[in-house]
Amino acid sequence: VPPRRRRADARRNHDLLVAAAREIFDEQGVDAPLDDVARRAGVGNATLYRHFPTRRDLVVEVYAGEVDALCAAAPGGTSGGPAAAAPGGDPVRALFDWLGAFAAHVAARRYLALAIPEDADGERGRLFDRWHAAMHDTAAALVERARAGGALRAGVTAPDLLALAYGIGLASGDPATVHRLLDLVRRGAGPPVAGAPPGG
Amino acid sequence: VPPRRRRADARRNHDLLVAAAREIFDEQGVDAPLDDVARRAGVGNATLYRHFPTRRDLVVEVYAGEVDALCAAAPGGTSGGPAAAAPGGDPVRALFDWLGAFAAHVAARRYLALAIPEDADGERGRLFDRWHAAMHDTAAALVERARAGGALRAGVTAPDLLALAYGIGLASGDPATVHRLLDLVRRGAGPPVAGAPPGG
Repeated sequence: VPPRRRRADARRNHDLLVAAAREIFDEQGVDAPLDDVARRAGVGNATLYRHFPTRRDLVVEVYAGEVDALCAAAPGGTSGGPAAAAPGGDPVRALFDWLGAFAAHVAARRYLALAIPEDADGERGRLFDRWHAAMHDTAAALVERARAGGALRAGVTAPDLLALAYGIGLASGDPATVHRLLDLVRRGAGPPVAGAPPGG
Repeated sequence: VPPRRRRADARRNHDLLVAAAREIFDEQGVDAPLDDVARRAGVGNATLYRHFPTRRDLVVEVYAGEVDALCAAAPGGTSGGPAAAAPGGDPVRALFDWLGAFAAHVAARRYLALAIPEDADGERGRLFDRWHAAMHDTAAALVERARAGGALRAGVTAPDLLALAYGIGLASGDPATVHRLLDLVRRGAGPPVAGAPPGG
């Protein structure tokens, strides 16, 4: 088999394994039998262990893929998802749509991050720092756009909105509830309206 | 010792033990040595075990006391805390002050509720139901007063505000952050202002 073909096969198996693991972990939890993951991906166990020598490696890869997809879903994101092609539109709606996706990510996928064990050489801390930075950068860019359009009150910051969306994701996994709670936050994040009482 | 005096002593020891346990659990966690609790309370171990035969009994009593105090702190509450003497004042401020106390309770004391183990006869579920009901009733009464004054937008409900405050308490234990995030929610919970754009 020529090297290029071998690399393409390896990439394909890697992606099949990560997609299968995401499904199996969501269905059975992060301690699901890895045999099930290999079977769902349609590869042998030897292939799974060659790509992911430990369960931790697989969990990290699944979670990293989720964070990448979340950040790429932001309109105007640098990762160039489908949404990146449409930089127009209401920047406040774009910000809160993304915060909704972030809350859903917290509700549905936080268990993966929590399942990554501590390690002696601090790899876990570096991964978490990198993921936090990616999500904060994405939120900050969306906040910046909304603020530039005058659609956010001064003092409403990306870290505060992320903290609220994080808390909402922890408090509820129900999409309708998440949407309603974020809508309440969105109203509070708007600029003061002429004629409104001070602090109102 | 006359019976009345014996009952007063027992009550006093009970209260000393609960107060000591709250401090020790906060300092050392819920698995702290119970000897330390007895020592802090100034009673013997036999007295502790007579009042609280199991660690679970003690944790339940500490947490129940926290929920009672939280609900009693609501202005106009039926439990008659100091705040109950002052039914006047701004009902929206009263509501959000209490939501702040609730978020602080979640941040600081949720570990106690989580430490109560499941039991075969469903006692844990009944306790949780009772505590949830007490907190929901308290929030509902505060929301009702704020709504009666026209100071809350229609559709802003006690369960939604509790979910937001719960999430805020999970997201941050820092009092200044909790205050800032609740302030954002408070602005969003207000009634629409004349001249504001639809949905703004």
